[in-house]
Amino acid sequence: MRDLKREILPMVEKDLKEIEIALADNLNPYLDLVSDVAGHILFAGGKRLRPLLMVLSARICGYKGNYDKVFSTTFEYLHAATLLHDDLVDGSKLRRGKPVANSIWGNSTAVLVGDFLLARGLSIAAATGKLKVIKVIAGVTESMSQGEIHQLMRKGALDLTEAEYMEIIWRKTAVLFEGACRISAFIANASKREEKAVSGYGYNMGMAFQMADDLLDYTLDTKALGKEVGADLKEGKLTLPVIYALKEADRNDRLRMKAIIQNKNFLVRDFKLLIKLLEKYGGIAYTKDRAKWHIEKAKKTLRIFKPSKTKKVLEYIADYALLRKA
Amino acid sequence: MRDLKREILPMVEKDLKEIEIALADNLNPYLDLVSDVAGHILFAGGKRLRPLLMVLSARICGYKGNYDKVFSTTFEYLHAATLLHDDLVDGSKLRRGKPVANSIWGNSTAVLVGDFLLARGLSIAAATGKLKVIKVIAGVTESMSQGEIHQLMRKGALDLTEAEYMEIIWRKTAVLFEGACRISAFIANASKREEKAVSGYGYNMGMAFQMADDLLDYTLDTKALGKEVGADLKEGKLTLPVIYALKEADRNDRLRMKAIIQNKNFLVRDFKLLIKLLEKYGGIAYTKDRAKWHIEKAKKTLRIFKPSKTKKVLEYIADYALLRKA
Repeated sequence: MRDLKREILPMVEKDLKEIEIALADNLNPYLDLVSDVAGHILFAGGKRLRPLLMVLSARICGYKGNYDKVFSTTFEYLHAATLLHDDLVDGSKLRRGKPVANSIWGNSTAVLVGDFLLARGLSIAAATGKLKVIKVIAGVTESMSQGEIHQLMRKGALDLTEAEYMEIIWRKTAVLFEGACRISAFIANASKREEKAVSGYGYNMGMAFQMADDLLDYTLDTKALGKEVGADLKEGKLTLPVIYALKEADRNDRLRMKAIIQNKNFLVRDFKLLIKLLEKYGGIAYTKDRAKWHIEKAKKTLRIFKPSKTKKVLEYIADYALLRKA
Repeated sequence: MRDLKREILPMVEKDLKEIEIALADNLNPYLDLVSDVAGHILFAGGKRLRPLLMVLSARICGYKGNYDKVFSTTFEYLHAATLLHDDLVDGSKLRRGKPVANSIWGNSTAVLVGDFLLARGLSIAAATGKLKVIKVIAGVTESMSQGEIHQLMRKGALDLTEAEYMEIIWRKTAVLFEGACRISAFIANASKREEKAVSGYGYNMGMAFQMADDLLDYTLDTKALGKEVGADLKEGKLTLPVIYALKEADRNDRLRMKAIIQNKNFLVRDFKLLIKLLEKYGGIAYTKDRAKWHIEKAKKTLRIFKPSKTKKVLEYIADYALLRKA
């Protein structure tokens, strides 16, 4: 199989380095504690996918300036803010193999540093001097919080439908990818047609990315995942593989699956059985298919751009989103 | 004594009614739960001081449009967002006589609805179409989160100085009052001189307001306060009356005060003794003096405006901030 990561990295090495520097340079807190907590979540091996997509998407829209890296930090700061708040919401213990911030510094500090990162992201967005940038960012933030609340409201709900799942992942994840790409078009003073193309790319990437992420919970071990196996399920988070399999299963298997899902202290043995049932009823395959569909759609929306190295990287990253192992 | 509240209310009745309607009309969540939680904090008898100051301040700067009430909601939404997050941080049980939101809906929902309110505030700020409005709002939000973190970091620190206290209350409280008034000048297309005047009014009002608020913890009973007596102290929050008295007390009394402060389960008897010591060493009087100084300063900055009903209300509100009983 192609090692996409090895193909992509050299193509974006310079961008990633500059994003990394911008992330450290633009945090600007006046308290060391804020640097420490924000640094814990920001510099823990994140993929920088959101800022990278903004930078590449701006480039494919013809952006020639040198503020793209600074502006791109908005999306990593917003992302980090939601991670800080989500870890508290989810009650998870590990993130990227490290203890979550709230377990080290307490819930209060995690909440407030999240607020700071949110505000930092907005300040940087405001520095673009473009009103439509700020409107998109504010809308994205509203949507993300409501997506998380929606997910929380439906925690443990065995009747969650595929449509509702799609609404949730759009709001909580895809909206930020879409926003990053849409804003890149504003920054680049791109045409409406180009804006639509890159936004579509971002939206579809975001949907596929979340589905791929949700799949990892059923396909990886703790070490590769950097968090507990079965964590989604333990939090009562029903994702597409489970939703689909529950719908397709016969009465008997559905009851077996429900029993495992509703038992928060399920054993590894139970979890393995659940995965077998997800496979038996096509939950894994269906989720892969749906994610793949969005990836193909993402690549298709780029058709309006002529061939370039940037276009190739965006296509590779789309493929990688599907194949990634962490 | 003058009943300022009775004098002020008829003068701002129409504004308050319109602010109330705007607050309900501009929330716009797609989930009922968000309305419920946001409504719990938003419609619980808040004084609407921040939006009201924005509206009056815009008016004194000559604003003639009819969007001031809508824009003013930004400041109540931001304020409500910080209340939701702060109640979690403080671990308080009551707010305005009602159970805090996180005790009803859980920490997660409270955090996420806070995020939503923050984002809503920003969206409404963005709708002004004025970049400088958004820059101020983003800066205010950064400052407020850092002020809260600063306070949290210094929880229970008996060596907190007056200067550090001032820095904290500026960041966590005064900055929002100042921002509301500054922005009103932008909305009104006011002169730099007018902007400076109303910002100064807001800043000084905010400082005095927080000091008066901190005093209430040592001068009111639970029923009038709407929260537990001695709540600040139980949270390890050292405020000016205590900071000043600790500095002025003789060795013996300082030790007695410290013993009470460091005992989280102090009895009503201990608390009454502490208040006696605060009075003995002038902590209460000094705080009142400092607050009064800021109120006088707030009123003085309005001198550049010619006499008007609006100016009179702003002056009355300044006086009220000092005398209020809840």
